[in-house]
Amino acid sequence: MERNIYIKNTPLEQAIELFMRQLEKCSYFQITTETIDVLGSEDRILSSAATARRSSPHYIASAMDGIAVQAADTYGANEVNPVILNKNQYIEVDTGEYVPKSFDAVIMIEDVNYLGEQVELIKPAVPWQHIRSVGEDLVAMDMIAPSGTIIGPYELASFITAAISEVEVVKKPLVAIIPTGTELRDRGHEEMEPGEIVESNSRMLMAMCQKWGADVFRHDIVIDDKARLLEAVKQVKSKADMIVICSGSSAGREDYTSSIIQELGDLLIHGIATRPGKPAILGIIDNKPVIGVPGYPISAQLVFTLFARPVIYKKLGLNLPADSVIDCRVSRKIASSMGVDEFIYVNTARIKNDYISYPLSRGAGITTSLVKADGVMHIKRGTEGLEAGSRCTVVLSKPRDLIDRTLVCIGSHDISIDFLADIMQKQHNTRLVSTNVGSMGGIMSLMKGECHFSGVHLLDSETGDYNSSYIKKYLKHSPWILMNLLYREQGLIVKKGNPMNIKDIRDLTPHNVRYINRQKGAGTRVLFDYLLLKAGLSQDQINGYTREEYTHLAVAAAVKNDAADCGLGIYASAKALDLDFIPISEERYDLCILPDLIDKKYIEVLMEIITGKEFKKRVMDFGGYSFRNTGNIICQGSL
Amino acid sequence: MERNIYIKNTPLEQAIELFMRQLEKCSYFQITTETIDVLGSEDRILSSAATARRSSPHYIASAMDGIAVQAADTYGANEVNPVILNKNQYIEVDTGEYVPKSFDAVIMIEDVNYLGEQVELIKPAVPWQHIRSVGEDLVAMDMIAPSGTIIGPYELASFITAAISEVEVVKKPLVAIIPTGTELRDRGHEEMEPGEIVESNSRMLMAMCQKWGADVFRHDIVIDDKARLLEAVKQVKSKADMIVICSGSSAGREDYTSSIIQELGDLLIHGIATRPGKPAILGIIDNKPVIGVPGYPISAQLVFTLFARPVIYKKLGLNLPADSVIDCRVSRKIASSMGVDEFIYVNTARIKNDYISYPLSRGAGITTSLVKADGVMHIKRGTEGLEAGSRCTVVLSKPRDLIDRTLVCIGSHDISIDFLADIMQKQHNTRLVSTNVGSMGGIMSLMKGECHFSGVHLLDSETGDYNSSYIKKYLKHSPWILMNLLYREQGLIVKKGNPMNIKDIRDLTPHNVRYINRQKGAGTRVLFDYLLLKAGLSQDQINGYTREEYTHLAVAAAVKNDAADCGLGIYASAKALDLDFIPISEERYDLCILPDLIDKKYIEVLMEIITGKEFKKRVMDFGGYSFRNTGNIICQGSL
Repeated sequence: MERNIYIKNTPLEQAIELFMRQLEKCSYFQITTETIDVLGSEDRILSSAATARRSSPHYIASAMDGIAVQAADTYGANEVNPVILNKNQYIEVDTGEYVPKSFDAVIMIEDVNYLGEQVELIKPAVPWQHIRSVGEDLVAMDMIAPSGTIIGPYELASFITAAISEVEVVKKPLVAIIPTGTELRDRGHEEMEPGEIVESNSRMLMAMCQKWGADVFRHDIVIDDKARLLEAVKQVKSKADMIVICSGSSAGREDYTSSIIQELGDLLIHGIATRPGKPAILGIIDNKPVIGVPGYPISAQLVFTLFARPVIYKKLGLNLPADSVIDCRVSRKIASSMGVDEFIYVNTARIKNDYISYPLSRGAGITTSLVKADGVMHIKRGTEGLEAGSRCTVVLSKPRDLIDRTLVCIGSHDISIDFLADIMQKQHNTRLVSTNVGSMGGIMSLMKGECHFSGVHLLDSETGDYNSSYIKKYLKHSPWILMNLLYREQGLIVKKGNPMNIKDIRDLTPHNVRYINRQKGAGTRVLFDYLLLKAGLSQDQINGYTREEYTHLAVAAAVKNDAADCGLGIYASAKALDLDFIPISEERYDLCILPDLIDKKYIEVLMEIITGKEFKKRVMDFGGYSFRNTGNIICQGSL
Repeated sequence: MERNIYIKNTPLEQAIELFMRQLEKCSYFQITTETIDVLGSEDRILSSAATARRSSPHYIASAMDGIAVQAADTYGANEVNPVILNKNQYIEVDTGEYVPKSFDAVIMIEDVNYLGEQVELIKPAVPWQHIRSVGEDLVAMDMIAPSGTIIGPYELASFITAAISEVEVVKKPLVAIIPTGTELRDRGHEEMEPGEIVESNSRMLMAMCQKWGADVFRHDIVIDDKARLLEAVKQVKSKADMIVICSGSSAGREDYTSSIIQELGDLLIHGIATRPGKPAILGIIDNKPVIGVPGYPISAQLVFTLFARPVIYKKLGLNLPADSVIDCRVSRKIASSMGVDEFIYVNTARIKNDYISYPLSRGAGITTSLVKADGVMHIKRGTEGLEAGSRCTVVLSKPRDLIDRTLVCIGSHDISIDFLADIMQKQHNTRLVSTNVGSMGGIMSLMKGECHFSGVHLLDSETGDYNSSYIKKYLKHSPWILMNLLYREQGLIVKKGNPMNIKDIRDLTPHNVRYINRQKGAGTRVLFDYLLLKAGLSQDQINGYTREEYTHLAVAAAVKNDAADCGLGIYASAKALDLDFIPISEERYDLCILPDLIDKKYIEVLMEIITGKEFKKRVMDFGGYSFRNTGNIICQGSL
């Protein structure tokens, strides 16, 4: 059993350059074309200029509804001496109709006075008036669109008008994706065994290929067996224009991709100096690119974007589209290794007059980071990380106008914030991005002017009150509003049936009770510490005090999946995952708003939603909440 | 036979407002949903928030390739006193693999020294190191994406990972398009009768619907017969969510749309105060929108964009995407009626540091304007037109970066300019927009700094030389370069077999010889006037002297389609349309370049293309050209 250990980490630019150059050498990028029916050619790319085969109009046509006349017959007409035309001197024509050779002008219907079969005119016609000349729209042999044009609705209509029935277009490259990994399952179930993983990367890569204009097919999952993987590659390589081997999350001993490439063709790169993305593999088999994509979703996305995208665009004869970029202030320090190109996925929002980028969790396995991300920051190799507050450039993956209608809520986690986000999107077309850093983190973020509002539930153990004393202490330099969102029940979350028979905090001390804590600064941790103090217990007595999760649901999930036996959290999260709950206390959860940071209209939107029916109903369905004070101002501060 | 004459032209905003309000009243915009398999849900819109059904990972997983241990077993390990673990104290784990409950840390493979079945460690493990907690990626019941999210590759992957097998999405509205017009033919032939028109509008509207996210089907063409059209509407109205009646180019007597709407539902609007688009019809049948779309392609495109697009987006629960706009200087005066909303289709390019918009020909029948246009200027009702050189806002329909890599050639027409454009696009990813306004127009455009270069062939009748004297006269205030593109043959273009037996310019005087001229300022017109002068003929003696076309091909097309008997033009255009050609003279066709207006690299691109093989070959295949001086500087001027 041999393990690959990546020793060679090729710098990114060098890897791309080598890959493209080698493919160029194989004449890989020579455009292949096909001729297709013009109906159904939408979104395809012309491989040669489209030239009109017929003029439009192909005859002299009326540009108006009216009558066609010989202009000379109308000369001298005026109100006093109108000209009368007999029925052989004119014909009725509608817009677009043929004007026979014997006529050279059209008079608008509004200017024609019918006298039985005769017509009376009080104005002479000018020769060729209201007549569309042959080819006014387009002339046979005119170039309608140059090669490289992406056929859209208007090109389609013009081609049809120009009697072009077939077009020569660039053949779509066909990408074969082979997912491999013994632990992979084709579709997920709610009850999967530990170690089983549902295969989703290939689906992501397929959708990416289609967005870039390639065709794609997926091979069945191949287990970790070199012979079988070799067989799969051999099977797809004749029909595909690109082979993608999409390994399971293991980058270790079960990785046969590189040796198969070596066997069937040329291995170019094994390991690139990027983060994420390091275990990427690049090679060429039968003059076709082969990409070994790492198993972590973000690594897979990045490697595929870095290497497959330019290859597909070039194969289509297109340049890469220009990036949509935005200049931002980064909300927190970004550490970066000098030796690698770092890609940091971020959220972005506008606060007051500046854009702020919020780096997302960096774990390469965090699929949801890709969903959440608005864009990516590229920290080039050889440069250092970024200090909090420094400027950076974000390449956007979402539309700019979405960024401009984004509210940011940083602070404590509550499930109701998700409902707030959903309703805000649906009813007000405003996006709410929320980040869970705990109540203290929220207050710090408000101090730095980096969020629009904050969810807080900080118990003042001296007064028994929530939030006010903290906010008065930290937010001295700007006006603030503390508004109640709801009350919620906190308690101990335990397995269904409470097998360890936990009744209160004192039952957490046996070493076999695995506790799972919240992160420092979380209101729930403050509460837990307060409870320990009241019970006369020390942190050391709790097995798992140092294990931290960032949300109530994450705590509940740890208990649910037997990663822990107990955690402190809200009733709603226990109920959501069908766990038992031992109530400890009710707490007040408020929103802290700094009017300096948020547009007044958004305060109104917030009020409207939280006092509205839908929000209340959805939260109440979860249970463990009370709305007795919702939307009321607890207190406020001015300068 | 009754003719509709539009008396009521509803202002645009009022028409949109009324249409949307009435549909709102019918509860038309209530979202209808369907549940679909997550595989195949790309590009669909979530109608309710997607919530994770399983945590990911759903078990404690290794974050590294290595061994899983009990951290406590490794305490105290260092280089001097390594810790040795027996085979029952660890297990090998790869990234992503399950870490059984009896272990609480993972040590990277690089830090493990194998001693047979035992392992040696020189560093203690910290509890929970290199371990992914349950739900690190996502936690069951977490909201992955709010309603209104458009499902992309990353959402797809996340849904699969979260065990979401089906998603509730917004049902795509189904649009029925009924093309109507007796003159319409389903597909074009090269030989169509005068008055026959190939039906292309429905194809354009179908492609537009699909771009906006709707499904669409097309009814067969219905001839101008009220009963049949009524039948067609009745047939589609139960299954479609929107009915579009797409009339032939006749807006006159054969228009039954409004009376059918009146019969089956409510007619809301008949005629809107826009240009183009005036004969639009809006109504509601069975609580569904019905749009009567005019037959002229640009009118059809505009009316459909103005009325169908907001309805489709709203029906999908989406806001209209933000416009991409650009601030421009307009190249020429735009007249506008105070009473209508005007939409002016434009090309746009950057010259030096400013964007310039070039209004395209305004004929509503010019399909190719839609292909050419980079965007549209909206001149609001109640405002006056624009003076040449004034500022305006263009809503772009093409990507901004395309605008930024656009060269503009304004001047005389030659077929070779199309080849230049095609090669420039293919080889240099640079777009060349050319406008035919004649040689004099080109020089004027250079003077105003509104094009990058100009094609000119102006005969100085005193010297017999081309171009130099004109350019010296007009371009006194900036440096210029006159470079030869090619020589070409000018002559009389006549029908195949020359039925009128035209041998030289003197044969054009009989009244039955219909001449077709070029526009004022065209080099070819200058040449024609010179020929008339030399022959001692006057303009009055030429039947058709006042009929103007803007290109050589348009002149040839007029002759080809029996709209004229003769015109002066280049050999290539006669050959292109298989016409006869009586040579008159060879002329020099030059490019005039102002180095102040064009980036040096583009001059090099121009040189590279025109002296290259492909350009020469493609032009020579047309015939009537000589390259004996191509790329040579004829003369240049400095300040």
